[in-house]
Amino acid sequence: MIEREFPSKLLDKAVNEFSKLPGIGKKTALRLVLHLLKQEKEDVNAFGNALIQLKNEIKHCKVCHNISDNETCEICSNQLRDKSIICVVENIKDIMAIEATQSYFGTYHVIGGIISPMDGIGPADLNINSLVEKVSSGEVKEVILGLSTTMEGETTSYYIFRKLAKYNIEISVLARGVAIGDELSYADEITLGRSITNRTKFETTYNE
Amino acid sequence: MIEREFPSKLLDKAVNEFSKLPGIGKKTALRLVLHLLKQEKEDVNAFGNALIQLKNEIKHCKVCHNISDNETCEICSNQLRDKSIICVVENIKDIMAIEATQSYFGTYHVIGGIISPMDGIGPADLNINSLVEKVSSGEVKEVILGLSTTMEGETTSYYIFRKLAKYNIEISVLARGVAIGDELSYADEITLGRSITNRTKFETTYNE
Repeated sequence: MIEREFPSKLLDKAVNEFSKLPGIGKKTALRLVLHLLKQEKEDVNAFGNALIQLKNEIKHCKVCHNISDNETCEICSNQLRDKSIICVVENIKDIMAIEATQSYFGTYHVIGGIISPMDGIGPADLNINSLVEKVSSGEVKEVILGLSTTMEGETTSYYIFRKLAKYNIEISVLARGVAIGDELSYADEITLGRSITNRTKFETTYNE
Repeated sequence: MIEREFPSKLLDKAVNEFSKLPGIGKKTALRLVLHLLKQEKEDVNAFGNALIQLKNEIKHCKVCHNISDNETCEICSNQLRDKSIICVVENIKDIMAIEATQSYFGTYHVIGGIISPMDGIGPADLNINSLVEKVSSGEVKEVILGLSTTMEGETTSYYIFRKLAKYNIEISVLARGVAIGDELSYADEITLGRSITNRTKFETTYNE
């Protein structure tokens, strides 16, 4: 019986590569590849080359481990960013999320993951030593722990807190509380409890 | 204010390429690119090269317009396939769907689309002339119209039927009816009506 699924090995190869991506099955992969087949040769070549360049040419900032086209990323080399405030984040997605708020003008430090014994990730696998070095240089005034509020995130925050406790700096965490736009009844008890304990002065954003 | 979204132009480029694909937005594209960034250099290069090769080296079978690695596709060059029966399909996805049934041993003819005035696709944009040529050669006994059962599909089927009517061949269409495994109440009226009109002799597949 005919068992072969694709009429072309080249097609098969491309579909296979796509279906290795997270959340993309064989059917979606085929749809994407057939779409690419209909595009201009130059466009598909550009796509392929973008992926090859991405992996071969991208660098990590030597200061904060952010992804960068140069030795030092745009944030670390920006004179207007406050180098004495460092926000510790898990990955560059978190940097992008915080940057999108346009509310932060300090710098970052990407630790590259989170302590997770289940996944075999310990403190030694993360960029924590370089953070401690930065702090020990004496030029840092504040470290903001901007990690996830999961158990692993909190564990990692606590680990970093312990490592930095002996230095004379401020260590803060992102405020926890009820999300803006959420109905109160949807907030979980722990968040709600924290947001009552840590309640802040009422400030209206409406013009009076 | 900071407006730039990505810390790297290479990243930006790769995300942009991914988000051009159908059904993939910026967020998914970023997730896929960050996933690729974590993979080995060789694997990402293989992905990029698979896409480039796909578009540069893939051919279309000169007999049936199926995708192929060679001048003639594996189906057309297979001695066991009946060249006197041709199933007309819209695209290679349909070939794969029919091949997967393992119920068809004739050959195919990919017309490459469907007549759709709304999208500016007329009969001249489809591989219909080469089908007529094949039929006029006198070596074809039957043409199966395997197009979609949409209005555009039926229009295209009718157009091809008219083109082939003067030749002494059988022209058939895929049977329409209630899908196997479907509840009857979910079948639309037209399908159900057709399946009553064209009812077939009961044959049980259970061993008695």
